[in-house]
Amino acid sequence: MSGTQASYTLANLAKRFTLDLRGHGDVRIDGVATLAAADESQLVFLANPRYRGELATTRAAAAILRADDAEHFPRAALVAKDPYVAYAKIAALFERLPASAPGIHPSAIVAPDARIAASASVGPFCVVEAGAAIDDGAVLGPHCHVGHDCHVGAQSRLVARVTLVARVRLGKRVLVHPGAVLGADGFGLACDADHWIKVPQLGGVVVGDDCEIGANTTIDRGALDDTVLEEDVRLDNQIQIAHNVRIGAHTAMAGCSAVAGSAKIGRGCQIGGGAGVLGHLEITDGVTITSMALVTHSIHEPGEYSSGTPIQDNRSWRRNAARFKHLDELNRRVQTLEKKDAAQ
Amino acid sequence: MSGTQASYTLANLAKRFTLDLRGHGDVRIDGVATLAAADESQLVFLANPRYRGELATTRAAAAILRADDAEHFPRAALVAKDPYVAYAKIAALFERLPASAPGIHPSAIVAPDARIAASASVGPFCVVEAGAAIDDGAVLGPHCHVGHDCHVGAQSRLVARVTLVARVRLGKRVLVHPGAVLGADGFGLACDADHWIKVPQLGGVVVGDDCEIGANTTIDRGALDDTVLEEDVRLDNQIQIAHNVRIGAHTAMAGCSAVAGSAKIGRGCQIGGGAGVLGHLEITDGVTITSMALVTHSIHEPGEYSSGTPIQDNRSWRRNAARFKHLDELNRRVQTLEKKDAAQ
Amino acid sequence: MSGTQASYTLANLAKRFTLDLRGHGDVRIDGVATLAAADESQLVFLANPRYRGELATTRAAAAILRADDAEHFPRAALVAKDPYVAYAKIAALFERLPASAPGIHPSAIVAPDARIAASASVGPFCVVEAGAAIDDGAVLGPHCHVGHDCHVGAQSRLVARVTLVARVRLGKRVLVHPGAVLGADGFGLACDADHWIKVPQLGGVVVGDDCEIGANTTIDRGALDDTVLEEDVRLDNQIQIAHNVRIGAHTAMAGCSAVAGSAKIGRGCQIGGGAGVLGHLEITDGVTITSMALVTHSIHEPGEYSSGTPIQDNRSWRRNAARFKHLDELNRRVQTLEKKDAAQ
Repeated sequence: MSGTQASYTLANLAKRFTLDLRGHGDVRIDGVATLAAADESQLVFLANPRYRGELATTRAAAAILRADDAEHFPRAALVAKDPYVAYAKIAALFERLPASAPGIHPSAIVAPDARIAASASVGPFCVVEAGAAIDDGAVLGPHCHVGHDCHVGAQSRLVARVTLVARVRLGKRVLVHPGAVLGADGFGLACDADHWIKVPQLGGVVVGDDCEIGANTTIDRGALDDTVLEEDVRLDNQIQIAHNVRIGAHTAMAGCSAVAGSAKIGRGCQIGGGAGVLGHLEITDGVTITSMALVTHSIHEPGEYSSGTPIQDNRSWRRNAARFKHLDELNRRVQTLEKKDAAQ
Repeated sequence: MSGTQASYTLANLAKRFTLDLRGHGDVRIDGVATLAAADESQLVFLANPRYRGELATTRAAAAILRADDAEHFPRAALVAKDPYVAYAKIAALFERLPASAPGIHPSAIVAPDARIAASASVGPFCVVEAGAAIDDGAVLGPHCHVGHDCHVGAQSRLVARVTLVARVRLGKRVLVHPGAVLGADGFGLACDADHWIKVPQLGGVVVGDDCEIGANTTIDRGALDDTVLEEDVRLDNQIQIAHNVRIGAHTAMAGCSAVAGSAKIGRGCQIGGGAGVLGHLEITDGVTITSMALVTHSIHEPGEYSSGTPIQDNRSWRRNAARFKHLDELNRRVQTLEKKDAAQ
Repeated sequence: MSGTQASYTLANLAKRFTLDLRGHGDVRIDGVATLAAADESQLVFLANPRYRGELATTRAAAAILRADDAEHFPRAALVAKDPYVAYAKIAALFERLPASAPGIHPSAIVAPDARIAASASVGPFCVVEAGAAIDDGAVLGPHCHVGHDCHVGAQSRLVARVTLVARVRLGKRVLVHPGAVLGADGFGLACDADHWIKVPQLGGVVVGDDCEIGANTTIDRGALDDTVLEEDVRLDNQIQIAHNVRIGAHTAMAGCSAVAGSAKIGRGCQIGGGAGVLGHLEITDGVTITSMALVTHSIHEPGEYSSGTPIQDNRSWRRNAARFKHLDELNRRVQTLEKKDAAQ
């Protein structure tokens, strides 16, 4: 951790991120905060209009705002077309990431033929196996395991306790959170009369540049070809990606969603929390799936898709759910009435 | 493990837990068991009426029963208003927990400035980083990782392989099961034209006294403020708690449930297995959500809430589900019939 | 990893696996591949008829085919009644598994009274606790933890970072993937007025021969009796098995499915991804549950069962979902029309 607190003038921030400055540029910013919690040395932002009322009461030193909001704000402001994007960039200045000294921690166990860049950092109790490579500036936190023939690209960071089982290739600047398991066997079974035969999983996992993979997320190796995440794919926690799935660039998936084997998801998709995608499907670019929906067939048109029923008090829900079991019959009853009506 | 088997007289148990004794107090109890499996030295209990019939055939030495059940039981009994609560307390006497000697295992790696209480136990291959604190009587099993500025409260127990990434504060007597990840980055992304910008996650995680957190559960750090579990919150396995969620005291969540960012769940709620709560919602105190339901709007009244459809044989389900796709149209067809009927 | 590439003649493979050979037996096979990706030294297979067209264009040396497909294939073939089973067996010859030398890695920490077979392999940073036993030929990859009174059967393999907390007994040839947690406390709580009392979990976990347990899957210890997987049960990733569940032989469960406490699942069942089974239910042998369905009552007849609604574009779904909330009322409106109609 850096011992010194970061501090910037508003003018400095405006210049650094090419933002318009309103008011005094010599206002000093020591940190970022929410509108409600900010003190007089902190910078805030307004992205969600539901919090606009808090602009009047915030104690913040300054705010990142859209032009129209800035006009009514009585203190200094940085004007941005997208205040959330500007905030994300500025906030990174105030993030105190633990420093990771280059080098291999004396407790780590590294195979003789593994290639570790001099600028890479391998933390305590890491295991790096034969044929593995760790590129420039990559960081392995404590308890990481980089298995046979795995490759960690430059500036990638395995936060802690990440397992790359075998044949996993991470691009550059990939961030993997604790507990993630990449490259475990895909779930391949053949039924031989009365018992299961395991189908060997001979492929690997390829993760593009700038991907992020959440805590306890699992991405299995392909059966023959690879499981692939294109660049800038963002996976939240506890996501399950089965063997031979392909996920297009810039797609984001929320927590606990899952994709079954060999499904293909396009570019720029957004998959809601707990949603599922069945195997061997194709979802085109620009598709949004809402939370806990199940995709049971390919989707060829961009747009938003949903399944499920709305939440209700249990008593009402029970009555309606009971009728769902006879919905086809209800339809036939209405048909009968319609026919009779037409015959009159 | 203790080498000696625990053993108590029934009179001793009655006195220790303030229960009414029926029958011989000198009956010796060497353990607890189910009604069906108990032998003549074991104590059983009846909480679920569906097992009442087994009272007649159990070989148990004695039983924990409600007063009316005790009357018909031919052997010794401990009478309790809530036999399950009494059982839970008594069974704890027979639990053989591995002893954890105070001190730091020689293989553990502890930052020079971390504060470890003399009575705390730090197990093999643990990593405790700068600024961390482990209070009196706390236990870290093997492979735990207590990151920067994390705090483990007195008598808390990280069973094994628990990761506290950064800025996580556990209260007293918190129990965390293996594979749990607390304090990983929240899933914050800003869309900058055609790619994602990571939003720094500058908050922490605060866990109140007496909480329990299940195996492979994940609780992310807040974006600016903290993610908070109040006291006595009980989380089962594989639960996902996103950044800035707040969960009220005594709320229990079953396995695989998930709460999206900034949602607030009240006190004394019960969230069923696999249920989901969307972000930025509020659920009031005393709400029950049934399994695999999805909460899509705030809930202001206590009670039980559900979504989903009942399970059916696949053939019937297919027919009904196909009609669901035209439910609005079906409603209009009925309206048409109603109008015609009214016009007659 | 073996330095030499495996290589077989087709005649050798035919003999080894008792398959009919069509064409030249001296064709040399250096590996397996998909129809689309194969080169002239590789063997392919056709199991899914949707890929039949690719038989005409594959560059593969030979193919594993059903008799009728083999007739039209211009090159050498191995004829099998079930090409996928034959493929699974042959592909295993080409799997390059890391060699695990017998013995205990010097970094591992093994309790003095743990029994480790001479032919077993205990990897780096493993912890084996008091009363544990590791049988002949079993392999523990890096970061595994075998807790008190746990037993790893002969030829079983904990790939890496597997935690067996306590009282877990694995049969022979059990394969457990990284991040799995077996034997954590079941989720047992008794409500004592206004707070929770933990119910001690005194049982264990028993896993039969030939089971496979996926990455980050959790299987809790029983409360009093054991949680049981019979032989040849196959669990994918991120599955949650609660305390006292029993799963019958040869049952396979797909990723993210979950079974609540004390449920019993029969033999030869298939549970789809993300499906849930409520507690204390019984599912008979030979039942299939489709993805993300929720089993809310016991199932006594073999067959396929489903719940949920079909995915639709969000606009249509919203309209239909809104009507679901009034489905019982819609039914009553139709009844009213029917009565009026009958009265005419």
